[in-house]
Amino acid sequence: MTLGIADAPATAKDRLDPHRLFPADTASRTLALELYQTVRDLPIVSPHGHTDPRWYAENEAFPDPAQLFIVPDHYVFRMLCSQGIDLADLGVPRADGGWTETDSRKIWRTFAENFHLFRATPSRMWLEHSLQETFGWTKRISAQTADEAYDHIADCLTRPEFRPRALFERFNIEVIATTESPLDDLKWHRRIQESGWSGRVVTAYRPDAVLDPEFEGFEANVLEFGELTGETTTTWQGYLNAHRNRRAYFKSFGATSSDHGHATARTENLSAARAEALFQKALKGVCTPEEADAFRGHMLTEMARMSLEDDLVLQIHPGSYRNHSDPIRNAFGRDKGFDIPTQTNYVDALKPLLDAVGLEKKLSVILFTLDETAYSRELAPLAGVYPVLKLGPAWWFYDSPEGMRRFRELTTETAGFYNTVGFNDDTRAFCSIPARHDVARRVDCAYLASLVTSGRLDEDEAYEVAHDLTYRLVKQAYRL
Amino acid sequence: MTLGIADAPATAKDRLDPHRLFPADTASRTLALELYQTVRDLPIVSPHGHTDPRWYAENEAFPDPAQLFIVPDHYVFRMLCSQGIDLADLGVPRADGGWTETDSRKIWRTFAENFHLFRATPSRMWLEHSLQETFGWTKRISAQTADEAYDHIADCLTRPEFRPRALFERFNIEVIATTESPLDDLKWHRRIQESGWSGRVVTAYRPDAVLDPEFEGFEANVLEFGELTGETTTTWQGYLNAHRNRRAYFKSFGATSSDHGHATARTENLSAARAEALFQKALKGVCTPEEADAFRGHMLTEMARMSLEDDLVLQIHPGSYRNHSDPIRNAFGRDKGFDIPTQTNYVDALKPLLDAVGLEKKLSVILFTLDETAYSRELAPLAGVYPVLKLGPAWWFYDSPEGMRRFRELTTETAGFYNTVGFNDDTRAFCSIPARHDVARRVDCAYLASLVTSGRLDEDEAYEVAHDLTYRLVKQAYRL
Amino acid sequence: MTLGIADAPATAKDRLDPHRLFPADTASRTLALELYQTVRDLPIVSPHGHTDPRWYAENEAFPDPAQLFIVPDHYVFRMLCSQGIDLADLGVPRADGGWTETDSRKIWRTFAENFHLFRATPSRMWLEHSLQETFGWTKRISAQTADEAYDHIADCLTRPEFRPRALFERFNIEVIATTESPLDDLKWHRRIQESGWSGRVVTAYRPDAVLDPEFEGFEANVLEFGELTGETTTTWQGYLNAHRNRRAYFKSFGATSSDHGHATARTENLSAARAEALFQKALKGVCTPEEADAFRGHMLTEMARMSLEDDLVLQIHPGSYRNHSDPIRNAFGRDKGFDIPTQTNYVDALKPLLDAVGLEKKLSVILFTLDETAYSRELAPLAGVYPVLKLGPAWWFYDSPEGMRRFRELTTETAGFYNTVGFNDDTRAFCSIPARHDVARRVDCAYLASLVTSGRLDEDEAYEVAHDLTYRLVKQAYRL
Repeated sequence: MTLGIADAPATAKDRLDPHRLFPADTASRTLALELYQTVRDLPIVSPHGHTDPRWYAENEAFPDPAQLFIVPDHYVFRMLCSQGIDLADLGVPRADGGWTETDSRKIWRTFAENFHLFRATPSRMWLEHSLQETFGWTKRISAQTADEAYDHIADCLTRPEFRPRALFERFNIEVIATTESPLDDLKWHRRIQESGWSGRVVTAYRPDAVLDPEFEGFEANVLEFGELTGETTTTWQGYLNAHRNRRAYFKSFGATSSDHGHATARTENLSAARAEALFQKALKGVCTPEEADAFRGHMLTEMARMSLEDDLVLQIHPGSYRNHSDPIRNAFGRDKGFDIPTQTNYVDALKPLLDAVGLEKKLSVILFTLDETAYSRELAPLAGVYPVLKLGPAWWFYDSPEGMRRFRELTTETAGFYNTVGFNDDTRAFCSIPARHDVARRVDCAYLASLVTSGRLDEDEAYEVAHDLTYRLVKQAYRL
Repeated sequence: MTLGIADAPATAKDRLDPHRLFPADTASRTLALELYQTVRDLPIVSPHGHTDPRWYAENEAFPDPAQLFIVPDHYVFRMLCSQGIDLADLGVPRADGGWTETDSRKIWRTFAENFHLFRATPSRMWLEHSLQETFGWTKRISAQTADEAYDHIADCLTRPEFRPRALFERFNIEVIATTESPLDDLKWHRRIQESGWSGRVVTAYRPDAVLDPEFEGFEANVLEFGELTGETTTTWQGYLNAHRNRRAYFKSFGATSSDHGHATARTENLSAARAEALFQKALKGVCTPEEADAFRGHMLTEMARMSLEDDLVLQIHPGSYRNHSDPIRNAFGRDKGFDIPTQTNYVDALKPLLDAVGLEKKLSVILFTLDETAYSRELAPLAGVYPVLKLGPAWWFYDSPEGMRRFRELTTETAGFYNTVGFNDDTRAFCSIPARHDVARRVDCAYLASLVTSGRLDEDEAYEVAHDLTYRLVKQAYRL
Repeated sequence: MTLGIADAPATAKDRLDPHRLFPADTASRTLALELYQTVRDLPIVSPHGHTDPRWYAENEAFPDPAQLFIVPDHYVFRMLCSQGIDLADLGVPRADGGWTETDSRKIWRTFAENFHLFRATPSRMWLEHSLQETFGWTKRISAQTADEAYDHIADCLTRPEFRPRALFERFNIEVIATTESPLDDLKWHRRIQESGWSGRVVTAYRPDAVLDPEFEGFEANVLEFGELTGETTTTWQGYLNAHRNRRAYFKSFGATSSDHGHATARTENLSAARAEALFQKALKGVCTPEEADAFRGHMLTEMARMSLEDDLVLQIHPGSYRNHSDPIRNAFGRDKGFDIPTQTNYVDALKPLLDAVGLEKKLSVILFTLDETAYSRELAPLAGVYPVLKLGPAWWFYDSPEGMRRFRELTTETAGFYNTVGFNDDTRAFCSIPARHDVARRVDCAYLASLVTSGRLDEDEAYEVAHDLTYRLVKQAYRL
């Protein structure tokens, strides 16, 4: 992105087509490029993601190409797994203590030999962008080029300009958010603050561990939560105060949002007595699944009420059936690529929260979905009328050119542009961040250009909207 | 539409691109324009909508720009509300007697200052079409142009050629349907009939007030229904006869259809004894929600049976969660933009009605949806085999260029063109009618042109289909 | 396909546009054509379908145009039925012994007079392809040309080169699968084997009659199943052994797959005791609907376990509400065009089977859907991680240009190309086979060309993928 070559004519050496993702017809393609050129170099604002704050705190070199691009990236190892390559052969860490590959070059070769599996996927696009723009590598990955590529990347990683802070600056990141549990002491964030480094890294409040009665160790977590905050978390009011307290602590490390990823979008607005009763059952570990779900739903409304006090933006990321494969969960643990989207209802689910706080002007609730059928049917109509609601960008499996295009086509006519919040990269794959933002900028510019050439938007407006979607709306929606 | 300038080259003065909504490639765009030119000036047949018959009866001037374009248009005020502008500040009338803005110029200015919210929405397209083609105003609406635009429109509205009947004629409306309750005396329709005016305005039979046990005042409504029709509506047969009687009365004011907007598409075909028992419970106000729903579902089948007697076309508009926000409903009443679509099942839901009357050749049932996932999965397969079923056009949130395009792409391959019924504007925004029909004509011509250039339809057929979709199928399907 | 004229410039005589289904812009269209030219003449591999093995065994002439193109084709007669033409007037055989038209010319004329109903449908495209490429007829079908076309086709059918085996060879079919019940003696397959003809026709194992407790005559079928296999099918183990035995028999006639078309995708992995108990209830005809459904679901997992032993590929075709119209079923019997898709859940439904065998590398399970909302939300994520899963092509109502395009756009970014299995024609309409494969090849090449011109795939890769999708993946996935 900052190498300034994306707008140059493609040379034999380039892997990346400078017109990639733009419309096919000349008029729209030309305009898309012109729009893109005005936003290509804008700073990256990354309000939601999962990079490790330790990287920025310690600023140590990334270990090797496989540890950087394959082992931690569920987009990559899930595709290889789908074609019969064991997660253990890809070096994925195990929960059961069994063998897993530790030879990074061997892992990289397996990936390279199967690179054709990624044809036309976003993973391929992100990787090639990263290799060309960040590492200066422009050959196609394959069995033939595997070793040469490995050596090239490994060599780069030894150099100071490939350390996390240097890349952060080269990626032109204005601010990035990480995501932490209330039980996290935020020591890496503290170290970043204390280091005097100018990079802006903020946290976000993700309270599953102390909010979901079905989370492993919930009861112990709530007690620890009390110790951390000095509140008596065995009482309902003490528990709520602990959240208030910890949210303030997170705010002192830059947090502007909380984040919630339940299996459904269910909210509840229970009486205090009913909520307290559920909380006490949760503490005893005797909630039924229905009660646990009701409690989670109610806590979203409590979080929204706290946001009215402390201004944190509330993010809802529902609809993933987590850890779908029992054998994989048993062998490898959580988050190993076997999370599958499910149908998600928003209309009934959000009504309790919306009846409670849906018309508040100070509150901002950002909705995401893994069920894109909800975009035009439920999400755009909801965000297109409730003042508190905004639509998060195309997420996870939809963080892709076609997914982003459908997001705009399915939501804009009902919710407009100004009930959306720009792009989230939502990633732990650090080197993919510029690539992901670049894809979003290109797809949005392509969409805007098509609106202009089909007479639905004026050209001067398209430039303004391109800037808004890339930069202004993100900062405004996330209060960054 | 009738000003004859849409096909002229765009001048600096024009807001509207004469090629708007056509395909990007030259061959398709050229053909789309040629197709469009053959249907652009066809009369408007508007078989379903919500304009006020009083306008045509009294022919009084519309009050002012805000009362014409903003206050009554839920598409407009919902978007402004979504960005934190109170409905009261937009002059939306209240149910609770609270304050609401009455300064129309102030309302208009609020709208104009926020006009960017409507970028790429159908509301923007309809408004700009109306301003240019009807009012001759071609500047973009903004804070800067707000007052000038207001004065320009307000001035127009004082002139005789902007009275309802003059606009009706200028819009080239061949026939328009309004929608009334069986309890309506149709006095405005009577006045239109008696006035000698040549404009054709017909009613449609919308019996929610006397058919839905959960409708406010159901019991009293049924008694009033009996008085109006001279039937003993406290008996099941008397109640059915009252419908027969009132449908005949509506037919005498031109009605060719009934209309039904339940929360789901559920139908039932109950025994007479069971139906009567539910009806008696409904009269006593003791139906459970399930019983009320079963009764509504059964009444659709009764309505279909009456259609076999009297030829009224049966329209089903299901799937809206009405008045989703309790606070808004309490303050402002029904239909204030907080109606949200929900998932809608048609396959199980329609089976009772279809088993009863689905193969009848005299009956016509027109299905609509707010859940576009049903188009390819359920609605096109159903309409593509049952003789009674036809597909209504893209509705409400889908009454938009992208929505209409998806409607054709998702239904044509299974149900063809001839199980569809042309366009409905379904609006109470009178001045938007030519704009809405123009969008539909353009999108259909764009789709047909793409079929021709991709070898899926012969060019001579495209001209015929364009005419059919714009005019012939509407009149045939609605028996107008 | 084999006449070699598809790439010639269209002449006045041609009905088919040589560039049909390719993208509109010149660069993509040119590349699509070049890609298509490399796969157009590849042999047809048809791994799933419903042609009658008797045709190939007896090699008798097809009777007449109506019996070839209309009477057996539910795509055709359902559209005519939807416009009020009785199935009896189309010669559809009846179950109730009532009258049905037997005059094939009259049936053909009815079809020809209503040919406009098929505008922009795949039926029209398949028919015109077949008429031009196989029968050399290039006029549009209409009331005017009906008799001439009938005579032309009827004359062709009397000639040896239009016999089934000659067409099979001319269509360049490398292998075709039919579908038979375990109770079928496969005598036509035996006759084909014994005839010495070189055409490769294989069967597939479709065990509904002996696996679905709600199938007509289930108990008697299971007894007959025992007789055929020499197993005691009144015991659970004997019943399972009968499946093993019969699958082996089917394999001796070339079967490489089993096929399962339940109303839902439900699977179960019950204990042996529970499964046996359900089986015994099923044999007594006393299963509740829920128990019958659980048994069907469990049998999918049993079939998968048998596939681990015998290598048959497991196909799951769920989601059709069969015989939706009671009156039609009563008059005409099963499969008369009144099968309607329903919402289908895969995530919960497949979990029992996937927990049991989802990581097996020897097993191949091919998933189909009639609910395309599941493509991006459920099916691509599932197939993009589970080694046993592959995605079948766009099926039935989605076997169409738009349906195929959406299939690729909705699945490729998550599951890639290599978790898909090429094309299935799934037809009993023999003459449509080359047309259907041609449509699939064109749509895939159009998609690939668009990926290249938008910078998402290299051109050399597009050629390789085009070949894979057309030929290699089909043979590999179906082990043919």
